[in-house]
Amino acid sequence: MSAITEKIPTDIEIARSAKMKPITEIASGWGINEDEIELYGKYKAKIHLSLLKRLQDRPDGHLVLVTSINPTPAGEGKTTVTVGLGQAMNRIGKKAVIALREPSLGPVFGLKGGAAGGGYSQVVPMEEINLHFTGDFHAVTTAHNLLAALMDNHLHQGNELHLDPRRILWRRVMDMNDRSLREIVIGLGGKKNGVPREDGFDISVASEVMAILTLSENIEDLKESLGKMLIGYTYENQPVFPRDLKAEGAMALLLKDALMPNLVQTMENTPAFIHGGPFANIAHGTNSILATKMALKLGEYAVTEAGFGADLGAEKFFHITSRKGNFTPAAVVVVATLRALKMHGGVPKERLGEENRLAVKIGFENLKKHVGTIRRVGLPPVVAINRFIHDHEGEIEELFDLCRREHLPVALTEVWEKGGEGGVELARLVVETVEKGKHSFRPLYSVDQGIEEKIGSIAREAYGADGVEFTDEAKKQIRFFKEQGWDKLPICMAKTQYSLSDRPKLLGRPKGFTITVRELKASLGAGFLVAFTGDILTMPGLPKEPAAIHMNVDGDGNVYGLF
Amino acid sequence: MSAITEKIPTDIEIARSAKMKPITEIASGWGINEDEIELYGKYKAKIHLSLLKRLQDRPDGHLVLVTSINPTPAGEGKTTVTVGLGQAMNRIGKKAVIALREPSLGPVFGLKGGAAGGGYSQVVPMEEINLHFTGDFHAVTTAHNLLAALMDNHLHQGNELHLDPRRILWRRVMDMNDRSLREIVIGLGGKKNGVPREDGFDISVASEVMAILTLSENIEDLKESLGKMLIGYTYENQPVFPRDLKAEGAMALLLKDALMPNLVQTMENTPAFIHGGPFANIAHGTNSILATKMALKLGEYAVTEAGFGADLGAEKFFHITSRKGNFTPAAVVVVATLRALKMHGGVPKERLGEENRLAVKIGFENLKKHVGTIRRVGLPPVVAINRFIHDHEGEIEELFDLCRREHLPVALTEVWEKGGEGGVELARLVVETVEKGKHSFRPLYSVDQGIEEKIGSIAREAYGADGVEFTDEAKKQIRFFKEQGWDKLPICMAKTQYSLSDRPKLLGRPKGFTITVRELKASLGAGFLVAFTGDILTMPGLPKEPAAIHMNVDGDGNVYGLF
Repeated sequence: MSAITEKIPTDIEIARSAKMKPITEIASGWGINEDEIELYGKYKAKIHLSLLKRLQDRPDGHLVLVTSINPTPAGEGKTTVTVGLGQAMNRIGKKAVIALREPSLGPVFGLKGGAAGGGYSQVVPMEEINLHFTGDFHAVTTAHNLLAALMDNHLHQGNELHLDPRRILWRRVMDMNDRSLREIVIGLGGKKNGVPREDGFDISVASEVMAILTLSENIEDLKESLGKMLIGYTYENQPVFPRDLKAEGAMALLLKDALMPNLVQTMENTPAFIHGGPFANIAHGTNSILATKMALKLGEYAVTEAGFGADLGAEKFFHITSRKGNFTPAAVVVVATLRALKMHGGVPKERLGEENRLAVKIGFENLKKHVGTIRRVGLPPVVAINRFIHDHEGEIEELFDLCRREHLPVALTEVWEKGGEGGVELARLVVETVEKGKHSFRPLYSVDQGIEEKIGSIAREAYGADGVEFTDEAKKQIRFFKEQGWDKLPICMAKTQYSLSDRPKLLGRPKGFTITVRELKASLGAGFLVAFTGDILTMPGLPKEPAAIHMNVDGDGNVYGLF
Repeated sequence: MSAITEKIPTDIEIARSAKMKPITEIASGWGINEDEIELYGKYKAKIHLSLLKRLQDRPDGHLVLVTSINPTPAGEGKTTVTVGLGQAMNRIGKKAVIALREPSLGPVFGLKGGAAGGGYSQVVPMEEINLHFTGDFHAVTTAHNLLAALMDNHLHQGNELHLDPRRILWRRVMDMNDRSLREIVIGLGGKKNGVPREDGFDISVASEVMAILTLSENIEDLKESLGKMLIGYTYENQPVFPRDLKAEGAMALLLKDALMPNLVQTMENTPAFIHGGPFANIAHGTNSILATKMALKLGEYAVTEAGFGADLGAEKFFHITSRKGNFTPAAVVVVATLRALKMHGGVPKERLGEENRLAVKIGFENLKKHVGTIRRVGLPPVVAINRFIHDHEGEIEELFDLCRREHLPVALTEVWEKGGEGGVELARLVVETVEKGKHSFRPLYSVDQGIEEKIGSIAREAYGADGVEFTDEAKKQIRFFKEQGWDKLPICMAKTQYSLSDRPKLLGRPKGFTITVRELKASLGAGFLVAFTGDILTMPGLPKEPAAIHMNVDGDGNVYGLF
């Protein structure tokens, strides 16, 4: 019993025990020149884009994408496995660099308390990555809100563009879980305070500016994309763009440093780029293209992660991120836990401790569907079972049997407790899979297809839906987008992450369902069309007991309450 | 004529010509240890508070405070003179360190385009100081808005504290000129979106968190102050504080790096701390106490600046900043220009080019009043005339005569064009004044006096008013504050900066007027009572043609439109 009653250290306690090297040492060890690095303290740095120019003729490493089953409250530990795999690669003599998204401040103060991997597979300095880090999100927030201020100022100063205040699409953003700002009325108090209208705040990671930042290859590319975002319509139904307000120059100026990828390290001194953090529902949910490109230039392997499950994050990585960045993953790791599979198999959270092989078998259908999608696009999957201390041996055997029957490479990982050592088996399997080679990406759709067709392909092939229904509103928008010539863009599905369907409670492998697209949004700057299914929250709220109330810092700068 | 038609270089063009030294070199040259510095790129650094501990036994340098006449649209160049004086001190062999406020992003995108001194008396890297710098303002914004989110979440989750949503004093903030957010209604859209109520945004520099940051001596002090801000009342008329929401720990955590002073350099490699930026009307308007303390430990002279004219910034420096930081200025420099004095003498802006000795004489009365206040508190004034290229010799003679008659030390400066060289005469005069010594500070009031008495002393002695009127609302608040025991605090006057009176158009030296205090605010965290006179705008708006629309950055990272 002593193993159970022993106090398990928290992530921040473990993070504090890390033997960090100065980031200059990590950088020089991996071939980054001194003039390519901007320090932010001793353990964080931004890397100049000139690195990519200098290394343009060096062949890229292999790209390994980490995704998962549909997330459950049981937790999957996808980021932890990503970090652990990167560490494990280096242990078996393969130079690997990690590329991850930056955590958003809002959720840190809400439920999460922090998000930078876990246990001995974390990126550090954990508390700084989870707080302001290098200020990228603040830059996104400021650039976004500058555009909003310029637009409302335009309305106030005479509205030369004839912008319709009832049809403004550009809301404001804040990196905070603040539900009270979801729907607001602004411009009250008379003539000196602008034009009254309905407005609202999203969380900063929902900003199209964030999506653009992560999809841009350089400042010019960034500026052009910012200039062509759709922000509203005139009274004459003409679209209005930031370039009409001459806003994109100042916005790009605010983002010039944020565009440079951030370099940190893991607990085991593996280099990790942590850069950008778009939502994986209303946006594409992956770290910046620039960070992944740097990881590919510096490592024999680059290990990156996509948001939520393979139905959302990985699908978008294939059709949006990879298309823009010209990437092809050499292997796709699908993370699952026995506990999560059992939830997909119908077991309620409070009974996850009990052995239940049947539930594993039923839940496996969820995993199988995601693996099928990866195979469908021509890429080789590898299953990673993120082992928990109390997992039952019988269930593990069951799962291995199920995988074998599907000819699925599968490995157990114990990266939380053991760091890279706990991921060696997975790393070997990934290397073996990559070295067998022979994969060629076949997309689920071509951007030249119609909007309905593209959405239909995703729904049928990635979700296993029977088809898609479009509301009248959605149909009207699709016609309008086509008239405007906005239809030849990839699709970004905004769907619940919890289910393969658009209903969060339908776990496992739902069948015989259809997806309903109720609305579309043209993210013309980011270069995709968002299709909304179900209710998608773009501004979270705080829970009854926010993580913030347990946070503290003492006189010596020691941090408490991040976990 | 060639001198007139020659293109005068802009501030950013000059700034770009600066021969900056790596900030590590500046730091080590001035005795800062390697482990006391955190780099933010090559030319910005944060300095650990441990520096002050290490140097606690070293005697402080002399403190020189730079203030000015009431500002006019003609411009006075107070920051430019402050920077130039610091540079000039070093030219004449006196080790001087500068301490200034950080510029706010909002005004940079509005009218100002930048604020970090001018010409050859600037702090650099100018574009970074004017953009995100080291993220301090973003940290203040986030900490402020976290408290707002926690408070609205409390209302939403059942309102255990019985907080009255109609009497919430804590608004939200954004570092943006955004008039549409001045008065808003939040929490709309039904039960899931919180409790509907009136709210609004101030600009971040108006946040009490900003005031606290600049008045705190360490993390513990900061946290305690954050915990005791007055943020609203219960239905039972009981005050509510952040500590009731357990918010101060997380807020302090967000501010832990922001508390460390930022070190940069001037065009001539003089070290400059740029740290904190509270408003000079609703707050005290000076850089952080910690930055000034560091400047005093590292230099024989520390040159710092107070906001607006001596009626606001300097008065508050004496009674709020100095009281908390235990400072006594050894000399107070009052900056004026002939153009500004002529405006105070009744000349409209378009006729400032014409010689007008009478207007100089009338306008001098404004300068004389400020100088009188400085003498009244027992400190020695020095007048700095910031010379403009087209100033008339006859007017300069007139002004020198006027100063001589008042036994006022006066020097011309040409620090914009000539850098430190243009401030040598002023520097010599300041050193002479300081070395003559013999000053002992006598405050205008004691904090133990009644609220009305304290305000009365400031109005009569610093403004030259006949007296003060209090509205019924103000009288009621004063009674309530006294009942609560909040009356033994210094006063922070919120008054127009343009006039000695509370009416912005009354230039020069108005007489026979009274001040009307219409409302008070208890800034219990910052430790002062704000007395509002006239209309004080805490959220600016953008002009018809915002500076932002001319800003840009090219592919090589070159910045345009900051000036």
